[in-house]
Amino acid sequence: MSLIHPDRLFPPDPATRAITRALFSEVCDLPIFSPHGHCDPAWFARDQPFADPSSLLIQPDHYVLRMLVSQGVTFEALGLAPDGAPRETDPRAVWHLFARNYHLFRGTPTRLWMDYTFSELFGLEVPLTGATADMYFDRISDCLGKAEYHPRALFDRFGIEMLATTEGALDPLNHHAAIASSNWTGRVVTTYRPDEVTDPEHETFAANLEQFAVLSGCDVSTWAGYLEAHHVRRAVFRNHGAVATDHGVPVPQTADLCPQECEALFDKVYKGQADAKDAALFRAQMLTEMARMSVEDGMTMQIHPGSLRNHNRRVFTRLGRDKGYDIPRQVDFVGGLAPLLNAVGDVPGLKIVVFTLDEATYSRELAPLAGAYPALFIGPAWWFFDSPDGIRRQHEAVIETAGFYNTVGFNDDTRAFPSLPARHDMARRVDCAFLAERVADHRMTETEAHDLAFALTLGLPRRTYCIAGAQA
Amino acid sequence: MSLIHPDRLFPPDPATRAITRALFSEVCDLPIFSPHGHCDPAWFARDQPFADPSSLLIQPDHYVLRMLVSQGVTFEALGLAPDGAPRETDPRAVWHLFARNYHLFRGTPTRLWMDYTFSELFGLEVPLTGATADMYFDRISDCLGKAEYHPRALFDRFGIEMLATTEGALDPLNHHAAIASSNWTGRVVTTYRPDEVTDPEHETFAANLEQFAVLSGCDVSTWAGYLEAHHVRRAVFRNHGAVATDHGVPVPQTADLCPQECEALFDKVYKGQADAKDAALFRAQMLTEMARMSVEDGMTMQIHPGSLRNHNRRVFTRLGRDKGYDIPRQVDFVGGLAPLLNAVGDVPGLKIVVFTLDEATYSRELAPLAGAYPALFIGPAWWFFDSPDGIRRQHEAVIETAGFYNTVGFNDDTRAFPSLPARHDMARRVDCAFLAERVADHRMTETEAHDLAFALTLGLPRRTYCIAGAQA
Amino acid sequence: MSLIHPDRLFPPDPATRAITRALFSEVCDLPIFSPHGHCDPAWFARDQPFADPSSLLIQPDHYVLRMLVSQGVTFEALGLAPDGAPRETDPRAVWHLFARNYHLFRGTPTRLWMDYTFSELFGLEVPLTGATADMYFDRISDCLGKAEYHPRALFDRFGIEMLATTEGALDPLNHHAAIASSNWTGRVVTTYRPDEVTDPEHETFAANLEQFAVLSGCDVSTWAGYLEAHHVRRAVFRNHGAVATDHGVPVPQTADLCPQECEALFDKVYKGQADAKDAALFRAQMLTEMARMSVEDGMTMQIHPGSLRNHNRRVFTRLGRDKGYDIPRQVDFVGGLAPLLNAVGDVPGLKIVVFTLDEATYSRELAPLAGAYPALFIGPAWWFFDSPDGIRRQHEAVIETAGFYNTVGFNDDTRAFPSLPARHDMARRVDCAFLAERVADHRMTETEAHDLAFALTLGLPRRTYCIAGAQA
Repeated sequence: MSLIHPDRLFPPDPATRAITRALFSEVCDLPIFSPHGHCDPAWFARDQPFADPSSLLIQPDHYVLRMLVSQGVTFEALGLAPDGAPRETDPRAVWHLFARNYHLFRGTPTRLWMDYTFSELFGLEVPLTGATADMYFDRISDCLGKAEYHPRALFDRFGIEMLATTEGALDPLNHHAAIASSNWTGRVVTTYRPDEVTDPEHETFAANLEQFAVLSGCDVSTWAGYLEAHHVRRAVFRNHGAVATDHGVPVPQTADLCPQECEALFDKVYKGQADAKDAALFRAQMLTEMARMSVEDGMTMQIHPGSLRNHNRRVFTRLGRDKGYDIPRQVDFVGGLAPLLNAVGDVPGLKIVVFTLDEATYSRELAPLAGAYPALFIGPAWWFFDSPDGIRRQHEAVIETAGFYNTVGFNDDTRAFPSLPARHDMARRVDCAFLAERVADHRMTETEAHDLAFALTLGLPRRTYCIAGAQA
Repeated sequence: MSLIHPDRLFPPDPATRAITRALFSEVCDLPIFSPHGHCDPAWFARDQPFADPSSLLIQPDHYVLRMLVSQGVTFEALGLAPDGAPRETDPRAVWHLFARNYHLFRGTPTRLWMDYTFSELFGLEVPLTGATADMYFDRISDCLGKAEYHPRALFDRFGIEMLATTEGALDPLNHHAAIASSNWTGRVVTTYRPDEVTDPEHETFAANLEQFAVLSGCDVSTWAGYLEAHHVRRAVFRNHGAVATDHGVPVPQTADLCPQECEALFDKVYKGQADAKDAALFRAQMLTEMARMSVEDGMTMQIHPGSLRNHNRRVFTRLGRDKGYDIPRQVDFVGGLAPLLNAVGDVPGLKIVVFTLDEATYSRELAPLAGAYPALFIGPAWWFFDSPDGIRRQHEAVIETAGFYNTVGFNDDTRAFPSLPARHDMARRVDCAFLAERVADHRMTETEAHDLAFALTLGLPRRTYCIAGAQA
Repeated sequence: MSLIHPDRLFPPDPATRAITRALFSEVCDLPIFSPHGHCDPAWFARDQPFADPSSLLIQPDHYVLRMLVSQGVTFEALGLAPDGAPRETDPRAVWHLFARNYHLFRGTPTRLWMDYTFSELFGLEVPLTGATADMYFDRISDCLGKAEYHPRALFDRFGIEMLATTEGALDPLNHHAAIASSNWTGRVVTTYRPDEVTDPEHETFAANLEQFAVLSGCDVSTWAGYLEAHHVRRAVFRNHGAVATDHGVPVPQTADLCPQECEALFDKVYKGQADAKDAALFRAQMLTEMARMSVEDGMTMQIHPGSLRNHNRRVFTRLGRDKGYDIPRQVDFVGGLAPLLNAVGDVPGLKIVVFTLDEATYSRELAPLAGAYPALFIGPAWWFFDSPDGIRRQHEAVIETAGFYNTVGFNDDTRAFPSLPARHDMARRVDCAFLAERVADHRMTETEAHDLAFALTLGLPRRTYCIAGAQA
């Protein structure tokens, strides 16, 4: 008896299931390559034990928070409130609340990730309910205290080949420095995420620019100096292992203005005189500038557009960002990316990876664009769509037009470190099922499917992030 | 030999089919709960026999009319024409026309509903064709004359626990009063649908407001008095059993203006000085006002947006509304619902159910919103999407993000009373197939699937419409 | 051992596969009816052998070019460059490059079409790789030299009942005249595609109008004369077999202006004074005019909207059109087609076929519109969506709302003549699988599925293009 079935997520048809099993058996034990995520590098720098089950698995996970809140659980009862305001402070009570509401996650990927983690990481074999909540809490608490559950030990146990975190342009990168100077060999790298100095509407933009000047040693009051500061910081990030940049933008709008226009626009932005339209244009121009710098320094560029952040203003005002109220919106990649792609879309070796939360753009926009421009690649099913049906829908919508090789394989994009193996396990199962169905109906041979299962798991991610010796 | 197969709509894989059968066997005989529909309450007030097969099954069904017309059948030949204009008046001739064209419905849910009704309600066992048209017409006509086919008898035979009809704010509700004062115990309730007094572009808006004043006893010339009139009428509707309101709007735009802005806007609207933009803003504001009143009186709020009514102006001018030319349009829930959700989206106990005809919004907008806001719920696959593939697509797009419990289970939304059992049968089969597939690939246990089959059929609808003692 | 499996694209469930086989066995040998495509009529007029494998199968196929280029192959290495610029000139070298990159097409319809063609047309039995490239090149080259591989012989061998090509309004139609006056009986007809004289933004629009006047003998300086020129040319095209017109427009916008407005607008257009908005309005008006002329002369009207042409400006400037950079955009059929449909949408016998590259419009817009308006029909899954999953998705999104009979069956829309049988084979297989699944779950009987398999293959296409004696 186990929480998880060895054939989970495999197609029910016996012949197709057998093919899936064979494919999966060859990728299930491959190392985890995680080129894009949001784990805290401090975990690996300090290697302190995780505190308790609730602060590890519930409170930082916006998938979990949003579902509970959507069904009437309060943030306060989950231990979240502004400083000084009343809230639940007992981790065990928070865990009980989660356990009693665990049925809400039926049919969601969170349920699959949690059950995998409970079973494989903590050896739990009975379902989580109100009745088993204490047993779960005790078991997980016990484990977390042991040396083999400390962050570096888990990293090694998970078989992680490379883990990228994401830091803002102003981050001192001290945790990555600490990891590098330690005697631990785990490969944890940073990623350059400059949103706070490229978005004139960021709440502390002016102060950010000042700090940007200090950190880079550049005069950021001119367009040329500001660009130079990016060059400097990108180089620092590369020295801390970065192979990629990441850009969160409300819409995938790009621009390619002439130098004079750029200077005039930056002048407005620098002086705090940019209106909403100027700010949008500046963000658009900066995407193209970042792409140009990637041509020079070889960093893979990742664009994550289309999420309207903090839709619930009351929750944002009280509790801040990342509380489950970032909502996708309709986007236009065809017009939006045209300036950038016309500038650098044909450059050999450049890699721009685009993600979307608007599934209508998979087949209409992203697959046709990535299936034509050498520099453009389609990121894996993102966020809400990192799910069994979500991954399958993306493959179905994208592969027939763009093929497999204009995609970049799986990445987990998570801050939930304990769930990493669960997420890669899920994606590998869904990928193998997708391939097996195409073997079963003779669209490809089993040999090709084996090649592609490896490619989706490891080959394409390594290639996309330019890992030496990589081969898709 | 039967028109309908006992395993219809079940997955072909034998193991999955067996699970589906087991799930379905436990929900197939549950009562019908119909919290949203458009049956005529006069049927149950008067309990007169239905007239003939064509006026019961063809002429009022816009699904049927539109398909026949789209393939060259004229409205006139179907018995529909403006007063005094020539048209077919023989119900048998209309029935023959329908029968000869019955192949047009292959692959549509109408075909499944019709065959179920023919088989289960009228005991017909051979397919409807031109050759069997007379036999069909005679059999159905015979039945309709019998006491056990009168409306109340059918209601009881169908096992209906509750049936909600929809009435405008100006409706006298006399039929519901008659039902209540009769000795029949069938539960038929009304629903408050105020579009004709909240839409300044309604063709008789000014006259509607006058009647609104008369019926409510309020001075509707001021914003405060106008809102009070809604309070009064909502209370009257609740006294006639209403548990919900319903709102048909061209787009899901909401607003949350300050009182002074509301007063100024209402003044324009009341004086007939509102332009198209004002009218849209007024409809937007009224959705938020209705939500606030639902906070007070506990009525569930239903929003049905995104249908462009009467696309064919010639047909509208000649024959009026509901002739099959209401066409969905692209909508924006993320920006559109923000004012309303920021006003009341966190209120405990409030239930706002949103429907859509734009399937691209399922995964991009509605699931993320309903999966976060406590007050927001996703209505079942609506209208054209109340179909086997339509329901499945909605589940696949919605459940992984929002879970099952932010949905509201099935409702039939129909005026075609004889098809009620057919529609609930179809939905239950598709739901069970969906769940069985997730049992077959080990995403959930069979026990969980049984719970969820009950929830989708009865538990969630009862909970959503606040039926006492309800439990999902 | 063969490149292609007899059960390819059939569902894996054994019972469903058996039904699919039975359905397919009755349509696999039906003639090919190709009412819309872009083959070069000169091939059939001159009946010269095709030159070599690369200029036949690689260089003119934008599906192939775009995939190779998207993965870093240069146009130059594929033999494409501006006049005088360096490029690969050896067809064998181009073929090798294609062969070495053939894995890129895994999962795409191009791969299925190519393998079918290699196997069934050229008798090749081993997969195409770098190692087999020479053998392939030699075998195909040998074949092309033989009389039975000349264009007319292939046409006859393919069992083509009718093949429509597409010519601009200014085409002399000399190749069609030559075919007609030859002793060969193959039916190759033209199609009237007037974009170059209806789009004021066409790069040679003024010169086009001059030539339009010459060819038609009409004074095209007035609105009336310009319309008359279309009448004249349409009649000439009908004399060369045309049964349809075709219209490529950036967006599906239509207009129905009064005559005075039309005259004023045309005056601006004729004098070269039209701005972008005028040009769009003129294109919109011309769609309605073309529909009106179809009412008169009975030609089926085809509208292909929503592709943003030549997204990559550098490639367009160097190499011209059709190099793989036409990208779909979001469109609005509901508002866009309203003027045209309100003008002629109810006309008996008129046939307007609309295609889309925006899959979100299948269920939201096209199925509801075509399921209501007598004159409107939904074209087959187009371009990137002429693929196994693409066709299935369209059927699933469209049939439940519009039925089968508001669709028009399959057409191949290709200029890749050797792939014609492969494309019809793929569509027939996918159609039969779709129908078999609906037999397996008892949504229709096997007899009905047989009817519908024939309808999708031959009956509906013949009906749509008004072929005498046609019956769906």
